Amino acid sequence: MTELITLINEFRDERDWRQFHNPKDLAISISLEASELLENFQWKESEDAIQKNKNDIEKELADILIYSLMLSSDLNLDVKNIIKKKLNENGHKYPVNKSKGSNVKYTNFD
Amino acid sequence: MTELITLINEFRDERDWRQFHNPKDLAISISLEASELLENFQWKESEDAIQKNKNDIEKELADILIYSLMLSSDLNLDVKNIIKKKLNENGHKYPVNKSKGSNVKYTNFD
Amino acid sequence: MTELITLINEFRDERDWRQFHNPKDLAISISLEASELLENFQWKESEDAIQKNKNDIEKELADILIYSLMLSSDLNLDVKNIIKKKLNENGHKYPVNKSKGSNVKYTNFD
Amino acid sequence: MTELITLINEFRDERDWRQFHNPKDLAISISLEASELLENFQWKESEDAIQKNKNDIEKELADILIYSLMLSSDLNLDVKNIIKKKLNENGHKYPVNKSKGSNVKYTNFD
Repeated sequence: MTELITLINEFRDERDWRQFHNPKDLAISISLEASELLENFQWKESEDAIQKNKNDIEKELADILIYSLMLSSDLNLDVKNIIKKKLNENGHKYPVNKSKGSNVKYTNFD
Repeated sequence: MTELITLINEFRDERDWRQFHNPKDLAISISLEASELLENFQWKESEDAIQKNKNDIEKELADILIYSLMLSSDLNLDVKNIIKKKLNENGHKYPVNKSKGSNVKYTNFD
Repeated sequence: MTELITLINEFRDERDWRQFHNPKDLAISISLEASELLENFQWKESEDAIQKNKNDIEKELADILIYSLMLSSDLNLDVKNIIKKKLNENGHKYPVNKSKGSNVKYTNFD
Repeated sequence: MTELITLINEFRDERDWRQFHNPKDLAISISLEASELLENFQWKESEDAIQKNKNDIEKELADILIYSLMLSSDLNLDVKNIIKKKLNENGHKYPVNKSKGSNVKYTNFD
């Protein structure tokens, strides 16, 4: 992970791009890349989308990850740490005994 | 990275959730989490948003990363590899001499 | 409004496109068009975005409206009616005396 | 349509909210509301989503339309006019003889 973040930061520093990368526009960018990923599934079932658009899906996923790592880096967030914290929090929201095999949102648990 | 993907997959397997995780709905989920991140910046400048919503920003970034790693795992994509490939491709689209200090889209280069 | 919905439905019926227009994919389409609108504002302040991208902003707004009217029509929703109902509901969430000149979310009212 | 735009503008003027409604944040808002609409379809087929979430779908559609009409009004765009222009343009991109019964994107026409 550290290696990837270093690569990403080198890429933008070579281009002197940090001046444009304010957090609000980075959040917009993640959302736009997520839509470009989703566009590959528009009017299609998953299997058909993957068969036709695998290459583009891979690229858009990479873009989402790149911008997300950039924003994490700019906010001094440790990616491993925030993911582990969130999984832990989700584990409390969705205990195995209430959520196993169910797609019910925790706000709708009995 | 491998460690994170293992943790994420254990989380959903304990809950028997892979049955719901078709790629189309995972792509939708990434987009929805990206919007929840962006919501923290609605009607605000970056600094104000971070000061007020730092905790939630951290959580939504984690959610985006978790779903993106899930989808990468399900499509058998190596995350390090797709990020490096995309940075390389971006480097060809945005050579340093044309893009240094500029936010012009490559389709609008002279 | 009725005239517009008629035009939109004629457009898709001439192309025999209703078969593709399931509500889930229409909801995806609205989201994708909203991102295309937003892309015009990426890395820019509003004024700059409007000056450079006014034409595209107009087109993306039209696309969002077209898909929203389509989905409303397919769900037998009366557009005037649902807008008036929602304004009324918002008026209860945001009474003038609590919300005048303030961008505080109603969930954070004292 | 004029009646709806008048109602929407009265709503925000009573609350003195135009100061917050810069076009970039309105574009963000449309995108966020589109995601809230889409959330109703996450992990579900259309029919199931509509049966469970019809009320919320109606409200989110109203929100998308309200923000879209607001932004159109602020940019002095005539909604009927921009929709008709866009349908006309789409008609040229997707002539009936090439697109009837097909969901192929115009960029992929032979």
